Amino acid sequence: MELGERSYPIYIGSGLLSDIGRLYSERGESKKVVVITSLSVEKHYLRQVVRGLRMVGCDPLEIVLPDGEGQKTLRVADGIYGDMIEAGLDRGTVIIALGGGVIGDLAGFIAATYMRGVRLIHVPTTIVAQVDSSIGGKVAVDHRLGKNMIGAFHQPMFVLTDTDTLRTLPGPEVRAGMAEVVKHGMIRDAGLFGLLEERLEEVLDVEHVNGNFLNDLIERNCRIKAEVVSADEREEGGLRAILNYGHTIGHALEAVTGYGFYRHGEAVVLGMVAAARIAAVKGMLSAADEHRQNALLKRLVVPEMAEVTDEQIIDRMRADKKNREGAIRFVLAERIGHVRGVGDVTEGEIGEGLRTMREWAE
Amino acid sequence: MELGERSYPIYIGSGLLSDIGRLYSERGESKKVVVITSLSVEKHYLRQVVRGLRMVGCDPLEIVLPDGEGQKTLRVADGIYGDMIEAGLDRGTVIIALGGGVIGDLAGFIAATYMRGVRLIHVPTTIVAQVDSSIGGKVAVDHRLGKNMIGAFHQPMFVLTDTDTLRTLPGPEVRAGMAEVVKHGMIRDAGLFGLLEERLEEVLDVEHVNGNFLNDLIERNCRIKAEVVSADEREEGGLRAILNYGHTIGHALEAVTGYGFYRHGEAVVLGMVAAARIAAVKGMLSAADEHRQNALLKRLVVPEMAEVTDEQIIDRMRADKKNREGAIRFVLAERIGHVRGVGDVTEGEIGEGLRTMREWAE
Repeated sequence: MELGERSYPIYIGSGLLSDIGRLYSERGESKKVVVITSLSVEKHYLRQVVRGLRMVGCDPLEIVLPDGEGQKTLRVADGIYGDMIEAGLDRGTVIIALGGGVIGDLAGFIAATYMRGVRLIHVPTTIVAQVDSSIGGKVAVDHRLGKNMIGAFHQPMFVLTDTDTLRTLPGPEVRAGMAEVVKHGMIRDAGLFGLLEERLEEVLDVEHVNGNFLNDLIERNCRIKAEVVSADEREEGGLRAILNYGHTIGHALEAVTGYGFYRHGEAVVLGMVAAARIAAVKGMLSAADEHRQNALLKRLVVPEMAEVTDEQIIDRMRADKKNREGAIRFVLAERIGHVRGVGDVTEGEIGEGLRTMREWAE
Repeated sequence: MELGERSYPIYIGSGLLSDIGRLYSERGESKKVVVITSLSVEKHYLRQVVRGLRMVGCDPLEIVLPDGEGQKTLRVADGIYGDMIEAGLDRGTVIIALGGGVIGDLAGFIAATYMRGVRLIHVPTTIVAQVDSSIGGKVAVDHRLGKNMIGAFHQPMFVLTDTDTLRTLPGPEVRAGMAEVVKHGMIRDAGLFGLLEERLEEVLDVEHVNGNFLNDLIERNCRIKAEVVSADEREEGGLRAILNYGHTIGHALEAVTGYGFYRHGEAVVLGMVAAARIAAVKGMLSAADEHRQNALLKRLVVPEMAEVTDEQIIDRMRADKKNREGAIRFVLAERIGHVRGVGDVTEGEIGEGLRTMREWAE
């Protein structure tokens, strides 16, 4: 990940979890380590990580949280700050985020703010975390009134991505996570999109997929995310915004359904279907490419439509923190592998997009 | 304040508050502004600030908090995030911190974290805030288990320091605030120290002190703070640590007395007396310079000794977040105008320092 003095390596491979002690001791100055994880990840991987760290002389504080977005709050963070203070952990402490996107965001927020900032290592264990949320430095907790409203940019020391951890991921999580992979194809990499058209089902059978193929796929996606972030770290230049393809409507769907109805990737699938239709209506995207996108997504997952009105979705989009001065910004595709930001989408066009999305999901 | 791409101006003068609209509109892109202040400051200055902002087309959200350190919590921040979200404030928002150190720290923390960071303007209205806490980017809230435990480094767009606001400051606040001015003399500026020896009583009569003299004094202190921070923004190189002269024991005194007993500056006065004795015992500081420091401090304030044991103070110092790997670091004077960090202070030497401090305060 190239970010000047904040650059860091992303290690990707099978079985890398057993190298954590070595990778840590090569870079870590401190023996004071906290591992933050969630119940479902603890079950499979915490013991291995702790053993690796003990072998290099660390005795990590272990913090295991329940699963789910509900943990990403200031209240939970407050409890963890307290655990860390009571354990005598100082500014030299290193926080290891072992888990999916929720753990990465929460542990990252704590790392950004504990004693004005301590170091962070991401050990992502889901597809979304490996190809998306562990890369780029965005960390946050949720507010009662909005997701990711309280956060920071805090880059890690390194990211350790063991693709073997994906093999214990439940099927629906794999399918939802692959939405971000399809998104990467749509925004930057027509070759990746073609590869998915050929071999999607191999990846979905993640327990048995060829290890090299899986490693290459994760690495290819990390490169896409890292290139975009590297060019626009703090989402100021506009480029980083292309990562929000499918997310304008996707985030709104998650929000109006209270974050319990859709997995993030499922909402993004619906958002991409709507966005493709808006682009087609505007004459930006060919019907053929719209059809190719939606056909690939259909092989991934067709999420059920929640009972929400167009008005609820549109109102919610207006409140999104990515907007400035009230305008709703969309990222729309011009062809597979290329998107751009668009500011002049009408309510009529949004309505068309939502109608197509609803029909597609039936 | 020279910090590369994070550099910013510090405007210092009499009556500058009435220029806030002009200074803001010269730099602000957004009409979305929040002013965060405290009751005692609101009474004197909020109307003027709001009027200035309205004249350039802003209609600021006004947030007025009770006075005191008790507001520097995640819970209070959470409420303010909510007010801001409900007011539809986006990433372009600018937060104005109008008040003393507590308001600057809290509003700064909110600016560092609201939607992953928005812009900040400091309008400090106390001596401590003007010469110290508004400069350097440290922002924080307190945790139940420790002061400033949750925070970030977040530099403002600019600092607007109207020295006229000091004229309404209560006498004990002036005296406590001047402790940081004496500290600046001790660590970097023997000339400043000499000036205080000559003219301290003029400054303490802050309602009537000559305006040019007051402006020059505040500016001279801002320069000292800014030079040190500029050389070591994130307290990594060691130089910034010299600002903690008198604070190692001072912070511990505040903590063990529950933050209600001493004003920050009063605890720093006691901490400087103890630190001078430790330096003298170590043969670093002459008896003459120790005497000069303590004589000047005596003209400022002789705080009452709280009922705390040496053991409580020392235990608390061990838990300070500035320490790494357990050692207590002191900043000790070699002469008036020069200090350095020292890592090998014995418990016996600390005991000597505390004994002298207790006698001095009797």
